[in-house]
Amino acid sequence: MSLTTDSPLLVAQLASLAARILATLPAAARNDALSAIYLALSAAKDKILAANARDMEAAARSVENGELSLSVLKRLDLGRKGKWEDMLKGILDVQELEDPVGKVSLRTRLDTGLDLERVTCPIGTLLIIFEARPEVIANIASLAIKSGNAAILKGGKESTESFVAISTVISEALAGTQVPNASIQLLTSRSSIPELLSLEKLIDLVIPRGSNELVRYIKHNTRIPVLGHADGLCSIYIHETADAEVAKRILQDAKTGYPAACNAVETLLVDEAAVETVLPVVAESLMSSGVSLRCDARSKSGLTTKLPKNLSVLLQDATEKDYETEFLDLILAVKTIPTVPGEPGVEAAIEHINAHSSHHTDAILARDRDIAERFMKAVDSAGVFWNTSTRMSDGMRFGFGTEVGISTNKIHARGPVGLEGLTTYKYLLRGEGQIAGEYGAGGREWKHERLPL
Amino acid sequence: MSLTTDSPLLVAQLASLAARILATLPAAARNDALSAIYLALSAAKDKILAANARDMEAAARSVENGELSLSVLKRLDLGRKGKWEDMLKGILDVQELEDPVGKVSLRTRLDTGLDLERVTCPIGTLLIIFEARPEVIANIASLAIKSGNAAILKGGKESTESFVAISTVISEALAGTQVPNASIQLLTSRSSIPELLSLEKLIDLVIPRGSNELVRYIKHNTRIPVLGHADGLCSIYIHETADAEVAKRILQDAKTGYPAACNAVETLLVDEAAVETVLPVVAESLMSSGVSLRCDARSKSGLTTKLPKNLSVLLQDATEKDYETEFLDLILAVKTIPTVPGEPGVEAAIEHINAHSSHHTDAILARDRDIAERFMKAVDSAGVFWNTSTRMSDGMRFGFGTEVGISTNKIHARGPVGLEGLTTYKYLLRGEGQIAGEYGAGGREWKHERLPL
Repeated sequence: MSLTTDSPLLVAQLASLAARILATLPAAARNDALSAIYLALSAAKDKILAANARDMEAAARSVENGELSLSVLKRLDLGRKGKWEDMLKGILDVQELEDPVGKVSLRTRLDTGLDLERVTCPIGTLLIIFEARPEVIANIASLAIKSGNAAILKGGKESTESFVAISTVISEALAGTQVPNASIQLLTSRSSIPELLSLEKLIDLVIPRGSNELVRYIKHNTRIPVLGHADGLCSIYIHETADAEVAKRILQDAKTGYPAACNAVETLLVDEAAVETVLPVVAESLMSSGVSLRCDARSKSGLTTKLPKNLSVLLQDATEKDYETEFLDLILAVKTIPTVPGEPGVEAAIEHINAHSSHHTDAILARDRDIAERFMKAVDSAGVFWNTSTRMSDGMRFGFGTEVGISTNKIHARGPVGLEGLTTYKYLLRGEGQIAGEYGAGGREWKHERLPL
Repeated sequence: MSLTTDSPLLVAQLASLAARILATLPAAARNDALSAIYLALSAAKDKILAANARDMEAAARSVENGELSLSVLKRLDLGRKGKWEDMLKGILDVQELEDPVGKVSLRTRLDTGLDLERVTCPIGTLLIIFEARPEVIANIASLAIKSGNAAILKGGKESTESFVAISTVISEALAGTQVPNASIQLLTSRSSIPELLSLEKLIDLVIPRGSNELVRYIKHNTRIPVLGHADGLCSIYIHETADAEVAKRILQDAKTGYPAACNAVETLLVDEAAVETVLPVVAESLMSSGVSLRCDARSKSGLTTKLPKNLSVLLQDATEKDYETEFLDLILAVKTIPTVPGEPGVEAAIEHINAHSSHHTDAILARDRDIAERFMKAVDSAGVFWNTSTRMSDGMRFGFGTEVGISTNKIHARGPVGLEGLTTYKYLLRGEGQIAGEYGAGGREWKHERLPL
């Protein structure tokens, strides 16, 4: 890892060269590098925590001055119970994952002695831009090395001391392995971002990990593909056949489990037939947990008569804007799907979601299987769920072992992205001197025989 | 198909709505629409050829005035032997391909009664911008409908009459099917392009089919993902173990088979040890076909003594720029890989290619398998071939049935792109009321059991 230069161009050139070498290393060499990083970080615990303490001190002063929020300060703390151990365990978890490189996904015999193979390979050079959490550097370095990609890391300024300490240790550890040092490089200066984002010939993919504002800024300021999502406007639709207790339980989880998460629910759609049956059960439970409901007229009137008086302060009027807002807070927009003879409510719900959601994760609660399948087919989002919480949208929960991020792109990886999302593929064609011109009209015929993988 | 509006925004909005419907139609409904288009075009042959004749007349005048090249005029001609029949047959070929939608690529039991499925689905709305060839409209319409995507088509102005005639027929044909009319829309005005390229919320993917300039313009003027390639700078490396006759045959095919193709070879790298053995055989054959060789000093001196005098006019000096030029013509840049003890030539060849090629297709000619495998592992291109021609890089030759284009992107589809490249996927999760909060520390454990596909 190079800390000797702050020139983004030079860093990217070195990364690009390192990526070429990394791409040809066998899995064992990449895994050995992860072991080396694990051991080196374990040995350097005191030094790193001391650096982290300096970051914390500076950040505490900024909190006092009102320049920094308490939540950022909390995220900075590597000394918090279990955090250091989790960071180290994460490296070994990544090491144990299946090698994503060299997987054959297609094998075709074009002709005798002319075999085509499609095989996964690393993307090349990743640029990861993240905010305060210092443990991310170990996580990202592991993912990048495991998948054979070089990574340029730009961390938040609040955790600079921690980053430099961790990256110095990683650098020293890599020096004793086959993985080139420049595979993982750290840039600390915020002013390097615009130049990095312009290096489309050297950097293949940008992965922002942080606030919506950060992601949106990056998406609007680069031609390099960006993996991630700016918004997580998730909806849940309560169909008239939904079970009230199931709905209550799922909405509690989806709204109050972790309101600031991108997979938390922000809009609740309710069939008119359920407004006075299912909705009051859901609403009372949510409001008891402090959730404000921003309701349209029909759902509000349905709730007013059914709810205890003391909760009425949390019953508010919705504006159109509320149905396009990612609150990331204990607020939920509620909209009634009116009963119209001959027009199933599910169609109106689908239409609302396709027009308003951020295509992240949307769910239907219903007993009716056909209705649920229709919803899952027609909603155009990365995750479409039936009778479960939007919070399930997560790489760890999906069994991917780890998560690079959740993508709302429709191109390349979509939804929770594991190691697979850090690979591309290439076509290898092994021949015996065949040429294109000898096939076709009057010539040889293609065999195009699928071979086993 | 709507021809009543020329507002790009309205066209894109209609396409986006049509895409939602199209995405939920079963394969049979999409295939029926292709039958209807096939029959309608067959019946309207005379009308369409008459429109095409009007385009040809106008174009012939432009050729006379020197405003248009003869090659564009040729590409315009739908009446040319076999072209009409090929266009119609193409529709049925696409219809017969396997349905790319609804394929399950991952199935995991997260827990009892909580099954995750990853299933392919259409991308949404495609914008296809192409130049003169009028038959492309039928091809693209078929591919879009087959894959469940809506398409906005912007054709070249030289073939406007043909496009309007074909698209009117397609429109009338779709009216009698379940596929919405607005699934395929035509825009004829060139001034609509900048606005279309700005509609990133409505258009999901841009596919340019035409000159390098067109592709480069589009890549630099939109934030919508672009599928395709601007450059096709392909290389062939002759290793010292290459067979001279095989090399001669492959270079003939790769350089002279279709010099204007993106998969034609532009740079030839030759091991110094082969400069006076293999290279003269290759060079004489190429030069006899009229190919100029732009050589570095070592390869030129190696050839000078070996070649017949009458060919010497085709033996030229290379400049550095020649190794970065896509000639698309009967010109080949030749570079010697010097013999350096302890440094295998293949490494220098890999380095040259990774630094200079456009990551489209590169090949090695060698008898040595280990050397070839090393080359295929380390060269970072969409296609890396051994003992066969770069011209093999083609969706039809690869057995994909048809080809949307060849992509040099490393994100999403890479190499020749078939129908698969017009799909994305979504995660469906079917539960029985499970919530995220009940799993993890002290709670339920994930099963993460892989289910058969």
